[in-house]
Amino acid sequence: MKEINIALLGFGTVGKGAYDILSMNKELIEKRINRSINVEKVFVRSMERAKELGVPEALATTDINDILDNVFIDIVVEAMGGTDYPADIMEKALLSGKSVVTPNKAALAANFARLKDAAAKGNASLRFEASVGGGIPALTAIQEALAGNQFTEVMGIVNGTTNYILTKMTEEGLPYEEVLKDAQDKGFAEADPTADVEGIDAANKLSILIALCFDEYISPEDIPREGITGVTAADIEAATVAGQKIKLIAKAAKKDGKMECSVKPTLLPVSHPLAGVSNEFNAIYVTGNAVGELMFYGRGAGALPTGSAVVGDIIAIAKTL
Amino acid sequence: MKEINIALLGFGTVGKGAYDILSMNKELIEKRINRSINVEKVFVRSMERAKELGVPEALATTDINDILDNVFIDIVVEAMGGTDYPADIMEKALLSGKSVVTPNKAALAANFARLKDAAAKGNASLRFEASVGGGIPALTAIQEALAGNQFTEVMGIVNGTTNYILTKMTEEGLPYEEVLKDAQDKGFAEADPTADVEGIDAANKLSILIALCFDEYISPEDIPREGITGVTAADIEAATVAGQKIKLIAKAAKKDGKMECSVKPTLLPVSHPLAGVSNEFNAIYVTGNAVGELMFYGRGAGALPTGSAVVGDIIAIAKTL
Repeated sequence: MKEINIALLGFGTVGKGAYDILSMNKELIEKRINRSINVEKVFVRSMERAKELGVPEALATTDINDILDNVFIDIVVEAMGGTDYPADIMEKALLSGKSVVTPNKAALAANFARLKDAAAKGNASLRFEASVGGGIPALTAIQEALAGNQFTEVMGIVNGTTNYILTKMTEEGLPYEEVLKDAQDKGFAEADPTADVEGIDAANKLSILIALCFDEYISPEDIPREGITGVTAADIEAATVAGQKIKLIAKAAKKDGKMECSVKPTLLPVSHPLAGVSNEFNAIYVTGNAVGELMFYGRGAGALPTGSAVVGDIIAIAKTL
Repeated sequence: MKEINIALLGFGTVGKGAYDILSMNKELIEKRINRSINVEKVFVRSMERAKELGVPEALATTDINDILDNVFIDIVVEAMGGTDYPADIMEKALLSGKSVVTPNKAALAANFARLKDAAAKGNASLRFEASVGGGIPALTAIQEALAGNQFTEVMGIVNGTTNYILTKMTEEGLPYEEVLKDAQDKGFAEADPTADVEGIDAANKLSILIALCFDEYISPEDIPREGITGVTAADIEAATVAGQKIKLIAKAAKKDGKMECSVKPTLLPVSHPLAGVSNEFNAIYVTGNAVGELMFYGRGAGALPTGSAVVGDIIAIAKTL
């Protein structure tokens, strides 16, 4: 059985999630793909941090070149967060022929062409299923099982924090500020919620969806964007009375060769499949000229769901090695 | 650009749907996969039938050996319907090293091990995304992007005819017989609706889902099964009053190594994601030990949606040739 060696960069929520899945489902995965998957190295900021996070001591390294220069590493999983530094590291790994898996939408959306080029030059794979919709396998489906389609529209609820806030505002009739504070207390929203509530995270994800559906790159900064901070309890009530729901929708459509895209609070009739996506759940809704409307629904965040997507990408690459 | 040669067996709804997609999206598909896909032969019962169906005369053949003995054919798409004859043909094609794509759940569910064996012996691919859920790419996701998961449960609305009937009974308060007749008039139900309304079609699909999720074969005949013919308007009304919906649910779950499976009318709370799946739409809902709950929603039938799944399988195979 061929052994595939992995390096994890970062051991936060997603890195540890992937590590735990590779451990708990090891036997099953190895049987399915007839490959043994071995985590060889874990890159961390400091050995103290490694200890805090529970990284096995024999795997931890604080020297990125321990990984980049290691010819036995087949796949690098970049799960550090950040934008420029992880993009540089991913580029180096790809150019040296190592395949890369990442959930890092910000690094990816800001450097899409550069990283795709590096993968082509290094004859390596770059996969990022976890970057949009967490565990939902929409990106792989768009690129593979649905590759016979010309896509005409993609829309989604791709940010769990804002969907949680809008759901609570709708169900409990509470104002934005109060629900945000509750979400922060429960760990569903960050202390600085800007990237979520202003739609920045959703714009990063939409940039990636546009690249895959329409083979066209639009920088997240060029996507018209409105967050949920201006949504009032009165807006929500008016929507409810009208049989509608307000959702933060990331949407792109191509008509007559012209792309229109945006991230903004949107009224949906309650009968729309996306209207039923509540709390922290995510969904991606695509329309193809053959398949018609399709929706993928699931957990958009969390260690194991996001780790599931990372492990799926590792498996897809491992099968080709 | 490498040319991939396809033979279509049958030119009914699905065969023609796949043919039309390969034609209308030809340029886009060939650019995506850097392969040219060429329909070389179409097998039909008679030349008169071929003419009626609009098969290009140069492609039509009534001799199956024109295809099975043709070393230039890479992929055989079996879309004839039936059970024993198509299974025999698929087995022969696979043993001779031709890959096979089929939407034929009945032939597949009745001959799963035999066809998998033939694919292994012939070193060929056997793909059947279209056999469950039409255009919904759930089978590929279960086997690939979600391969890091141990599945604990799979459930679905996998028969569009019965879902259409139950939806109309619910929305319009009409009795089963009346809605069935209307569905037959509109072409949503067949003149002999037995396979649909008795849950036989759903059991075939569940057998396939079980094989993929749990790596275990259960014959459709051994799946406990109850159709929708006994569902009354009073049952539907009682469900509505209780905040529930009645859906024909195909379900399998594995607990402590023991499999439980069934096809039967099932009460779901209206808040369940499957409760919102209406009319002829299908959905597959899986639970994995990493990803948690996931739902795939889309069109479970029709020429282009089902053709989309067939073409996705053709593309997946073409990429490996």
